Amino acid sequence: MAGNSFGNIFKITTFGESHGNALGVVIDGVLPNIEFDYQLVQADLDKRKPGQSKITTERIEDNEFEIISGLFEGRTTGAPLTIIVKNKNQQSSDYEHLKDVFRPSHADYTYQQKYGIRDYRGGGRQSARETVSRVLAGSVAKMILQKIGIQIHAFVNQIHSIKLETPINEIDFSLIEQNIVRCPNPETANKMIALIEQIKAEGNSVGGIITCVCKGVPVGLGEPVFNKLHAELGKAMLSINACKGFEIGSGFESVLLKGSEHNDEFEFNNEQVKTQTNHSGGIQGGISNGMDIVFKTAFKPVSTIKQNQNTINATFENIDFKAEGRHDPCVVPRAVPIVEAMAALVLVDFYLFNKVYH
Amino acid sequence: MAGNSFGNIFKITTFGESHGNALGVVIDGVLPNIEFDYQLVQADLDKRKPGQSKITTERIEDNEFEIISGLFEGRTTGAPLTIIVKNKNQQSSDYEHLKDVFRPSHADYTYQQKYGIRDYRGGGRQSARETVSRVLAGSVAKMILQKIGIQIHAFVNQIHSIKLETPINEIDFSLIEQNIVRCPNPETANKMIALIEQIKAEGNSVGGIITCVCKGVPVGLGEPVFNKLHAELGKAMLSINACKGFEIGSGFESVLLKGSEHNDEFEFNNEQVKTQTNHSGGIQGGISNGMDIVFKTAFKPVSTIKQNQNTINATFENIDFKAEGRHDPCVVPRAVPIVEAMAALVLVDFYLFNKVYH
Amino acid sequence: MAGNSFGNIFKITTFGESHGNALGVVIDGVLPNIEFDYQLVQADLDKRKPGQSKITTERIEDNEFEIISGLFEGRTTGAPLTIIVKNKNQQSSDYEHLKDVFRPSHADYTYQQKYGIRDYRGGGRQSARETVSRVLAGSVAKMILQKIGIQIHAFVNQIHSIKLETPINEIDFSLIEQNIVRCPNPETANKMIALIEQIKAEGNSVGGIITCVCKGVPVGLGEPVFNKLHAELGKAMLSINACKGFEIGSGFESVLLKGSEHNDEFEFNNEQVKTQTNHSGGIQGGISNGMDIVFKTAFKPVSTIKQNQNTINATFENIDFKAEGRHDPCVVPRAVPIVEAMAALVLVDFYLFNKVYH
Amino acid sequence: MAGNSFGNIFKITTFGESHGNALGVVIDGVLPNIEFDYQLVQADLDKRKPGQSKITTERIEDNEFEIISGLFEGRTTGAPLTIIVKNKNQQSSDYEHLKDVFRPSHADYTYQQKYGIRDYRGGGRQSARETVSRVLAGSVAKMILQKIGIQIHAFVNQIHSIKLETPINEIDFSLIEQNIVRCPNPETANKMIALIEQIKAEGNSVGGIITCVCKGVPVGLGEPVFNKLHAELGKAMLSINACKGFEIGSGFESVLLKGSEHNDEFEFNNEQVKTQTNHSGGIQGGISNGMDIVFKTAFKPVSTIKQNQNTINATFENIDFKAEGRHDPCVVPRAVPIVEAMAALVLVDFYLFNKVYH
Repeated sequence: MAGNSFGNIFKITTFGESHGNALGVVIDGVLPNIEFDYQLVQADLDKRKPGQSKITTERIEDNEFEIISGLFEGRTTGAPLTIIVKNKNQQSSDYEHLKDVFRPSHADYTYQQKYGIRDYRGGGRQSARETVSRVLAGSVAKMILQKIGIQIHAFVNQIHSIKLETPINEIDFSLIEQNIVRCPNPETANKMIALIEQIKAEGNSVGGIITCVCKGVPVGLGEPVFNKLHAELGKAMLSINACKGFEIGSGFESVLLKGSEHNDEFEFNNEQVKTQTNHSGGIQGGISNGMDIVFKTAFKPVSTIKQNQNTINATFENIDFKAEGRHDPCVVPRAVPIVEAMAALVLVDFYLFNKVYH
Repeated sequence: MAGNSFGNIFKITTFGESHGNALGVVIDGVLPNIEFDYQLVQADLDKRKPGQSKITTERIEDNEFEIISGLFEGRTTGAPLTIIVKNKNQQSSDYEHLKDVFRPSHADYTYQQKYGIRDYRGGGRQSARETVSRVLAGSVAKMILQKIGIQIHAFVNQIHSIKLETPINEIDFSLIEQNIVRCPNPETANKMIALIEQIKAEGNSVGGIITCVCKGVPVGLGEPVFNKLHAELGKAMLSINACKGFEIGSGFESVLLKGSEHNDEFEFNNEQVKTQTNHSGGIQGGISNGMDIVFKTAFKPVSTIKQNQNTINATFENIDFKAEGRHDPCVVPRAVPIVEAMAALVLVDFYLFNKVYH
Repeated sequence: MAGNSFGNIFKITTFGESHGNALGVVIDGVLPNIEFDYQLVQADLDKRKPGQSKITTERIEDNEFEIISGLFEGRTTGAPLTIIVKNKNQQSSDYEHLKDVFRPSHADYTYQQKYGIRDYRGGGRQSARETVSRVLAGSVAKMILQKIGIQIHAFVNQIHSIKLETPINEIDFSLIEQNIVRCPNPETANKMIALIEQIKAEGNSVGGIITCVCKGVPVGLGEPVFNKLHAELGKAMLSINACKGFEIGSGFESVLLKGSEHNDEFEFNNEQVKTQTNHSGGIQGGISNGMDIVFKTAFKPVSTIKQNQNTINATFENIDFKAEGRHDPCVVPRAVPIVEAMAALVLVDFYLFNKVYH
Repeated sequence: MAGNSFGNIFKITTFGESHGNALGVVIDGVLPNIEFDYQLVQADLDKRKPGQSKITTERIEDNEFEIISGLFEGRTTGAPLTIIVKNKNQQSSDYEHLKDVFRPSHADYTYQQKYGIRDYRGGGRQSARETVSRVLAGSVAKMILQKIGIQIHAFVNQIHSIKLETPINEIDFSLIEQNIVRCPNPETANKMIALIEQIKAEGNSVGGIITCVCKGVPVGLGEPVFNKLHAELGKAMLSINACKGFEIGSGFESVLLKGSEHNDEFEFNNEQVKTQTNHSGGIQGGISNGMDIVFKTAFKPVSTIKQNQNTINATFENIDFKAEGRHDPCVVPRAVPIVEAMAALVLVDFYLFNKVYH
């Protein structure tokens, strides 16, 4: 339970530090005979990579993946699939000044206290560079999900106070990748981009909300009581760096509706069971009901900012601190592929487990 | 992974249906030599039980627990601790009319589709009566947590649009049990109670928000990457019936703050490391930092209401449906001990695992 | 990992002490819609029960089972299936003299040292009475295995130096239950029975070997590397009280054969792949190959004997000790249904998991 | 549960194929602040490597390890420790002739039937080359065990009918590495070596028995019921390629002793609890009792031999087959470090878990 594995049937274990040799993932439980989609993996990695636009960090990270095991003549064999991304251009000396500092709202202090040792170079294991492993695994999960018609679409719904107002049913998912902030409304996207540019100029940071819609999920995924589908989705999302909140369907706003307003009435039309509304977010009693799965995740503003802050050092002296280097003013656009990856990992795991019943 | 177990070291497995013989829990991994606190268990069960006040269901459920295994001369032995609550007064015939109905926003439809069979009596395994097992286990967890000084306080923060406005640092936890809605502000509590009474009279239902504060949590609980402390707390809460959202610390509102406003600056005073604010909710990088752990959970309005609704039956005909029987107009006050129980289960599991490092 | 659970998909958790309220098992992951076979369960329990013949202990144990959860109208629902056997006639005072004694080759000492507390009444959790839970779970596993044509036959192969000499292919499994020692050769059985009676008269004990043959196992059960089918079978058997050894197929005797003698040559005849010999015991590379699965388990002589022995007490004084009460001179015949139960649990778990691949 | 992970607290996941890019292991749950002992790892790898003497295969395998993650300034950090050994000199074309053959007593057939695809080059994932990952992980486990004084000594006890006759208490472990067959008696070792050379000349193969002695194991390791220490050791050993049997302490020979002969009487001398004999093999009730842990494992003769055999091909035709290439006539000497590694993995896992109780 040391925390670097996720999933039960499609079980991943991630490894690697920001400035170590490589980051990667071992997937145990991948179905055999899946044709490996190299382009899908690279495309997903590219959506996550830093330096992709003016609103992300200018830092460049290596982004080429290498398959270490589990593939034979381009197909999975059922053996553990291991994929890594090597670290090549790290400048660890850039991080010397962080060696003895516990940055505000960072994990420096808790890691040091828990383990008595800390790889401070680039944040070590606590760095969000770890999410490259999640994207690698998520892409493999998608290869399986595509075969059964599941599609996952995440997008930026809010940056600070700028909200996407398009109703969820009217969103055109093909617009997501049309702009650098990954908001499927060009006008709102432009406002978000302008805001992030301004925040960046201030040396400050800002957070936002990502919505995720999973289409084509069959009825029956999810397990009762503790392993409810939305509970696992919640854990998956909350495990992403900087994620502070999760809600399924109507979420916190459900509180403002009465039962008569909130209930999703069933109807049977055209040989299909549907609900007239989808406050449930596609999940009832922890099990998918065949409607779109819809959830939201909140990301706080990045804690590393280029402004003076009070904090303490490793010898518990109160000091003044100002971060150097190149950091994201807003991680939300780059978190979109990570949210998709984690959703894919949850869905593939429940899909595979559900086969046991059939 | 069939979903009825929770925890890794302090691992619980719950069982039982609403109208079966009994509900209960087996706890594997309970520390030996813990003196069993019978009063604590009964007090927690009593907070959860239906029929405790005019704003809960009038339905009476049996609430006496029985220890089946794991205790010797009043102390735990390290063997599995099994506790049950027998079902005695169920009137299953009351539920005959639900046999072939898929109630809106209930788990009837998803259970039937997943398993091909469904115990419709009182909701069977999908019933919130299952949470009696969580409370039993949570009370045992508290017996261990108390020894290291951890205290958990959950309370109702919002019912529909009525919010508790008291700042979190000014809340007097001793007021929680002073009123039937479990809101630690008598005036707000009265408004909430009046609202629930009105909703009950309408045959409708209403949801709300519970806040939970865990005090005395040592630095170092939680595991990196996937098993972050708040990720497990999130999963734990979202697994409770009717829970739709979870946020740690600043949560969704973090989105409206800039990094410079949101960061919790460290300070060292009186031989203690503290943060000046607690937007992190006591957790950084997934690991407790010694500050109070603070999180919120959203509960939707109960789906069973005494009003006409459209739905379908087991043969997929569109029908009109109106629930009978006695149901809670608002489960939020009764969910308070369940939130505490789940928090206790998460904390005790991470506490025990953290001993491995020492 | 506290040790009271077994299996991954068909996951059981057992609980209960020899002189507690009840022993039992929760099965999480049982397939839904299985018709519960009450007679099978009772028949298996009866094979295990003490007092069944002149060569077992004369002690009487309660043997009636009760279903607590997971059944609806006689069928499983997919919810946790809980079955218990209550303890009714325990005379705990009989065990007062063991309170402060660490019996030779018993678990008294190790339990006391590990936990700092010990339920000495009837052996508490360390008692072989715990295996009643395994038999309960194994019977449910058999209900599923029968549907796919798997049959499990265990029998006594050796008691002390008296060996069954019938070649494995010539054994008539219908003879197993024809005698009280469960050896499918009447003549050998009589010798074994006579030996056990003599040992009993001496106040001594004796061990033996059980062979188990699983027929109808499809190709493909078992997982590579660490979860090989025979590795899990080995763990399952070695976890039974008094079991000291396990071998698959040719086992320790394989050492005396050369590769050219030991290899099982494949042949294809009558549309079937078979091997001409079965030194592999039906498993190659950890995966079933469609031949009979054959393994052996060694059981040591019972440690509780009615003879004087040296030992120590709880204050570490060297003392003289002689056990009182009624004990089995030989547990091997009663271990036959337990071996079958554990084999069934392993096979059903791998069978269910293998469905993931299809 | 797909089978490539082992352990609960100190959890390893292995990956890699015989002719893939690399083999390796991720260890999740390694204690922080352990100084990495490079020499120990290389020494263990060297004991396992092929081509080390005239009685092993002449095949050369790469044997240099590389650390991918988890180390900082020569010490573990608590992050996943990943170590790989690259494959460099594989000549996959040597294996073309095996592409469509199911070799007798090999895993070719079962892998093909289970997965519908098979990496036949060098045996792919089913190859014993996989055990390089186990040795890597076992060496890390030993770094922790050494700190608490646990030492593990495995040696060859029997090759075909040639047995080591030295009583276990008189064995000088320093002799093990003095000869190429790893038998701590020079005279017996020479006989074993001569036999293996003769078998090799015949193009045949031979098996043997390895004994393992673990010294310095504290009282209390192991968990009751299903996770008994010897049950996990059994699973660990039986998961090694070609292992067919396991016995703890007196094992199968316990059957020939009466209880009065077999019981290990306790005595208290020189402030220590000991047993006068050790038929229990250091484990009682599944929990270590402070005496040496002693177990044996049987390895069958290697299935790949240079003699004609009948078998079938991928289209189920009966064919004649003779293996080519360079293979071990006897794997037992090279299995010694693998047995040690698996023992270390089991012990470290139970040691770490046992800290939870203290």
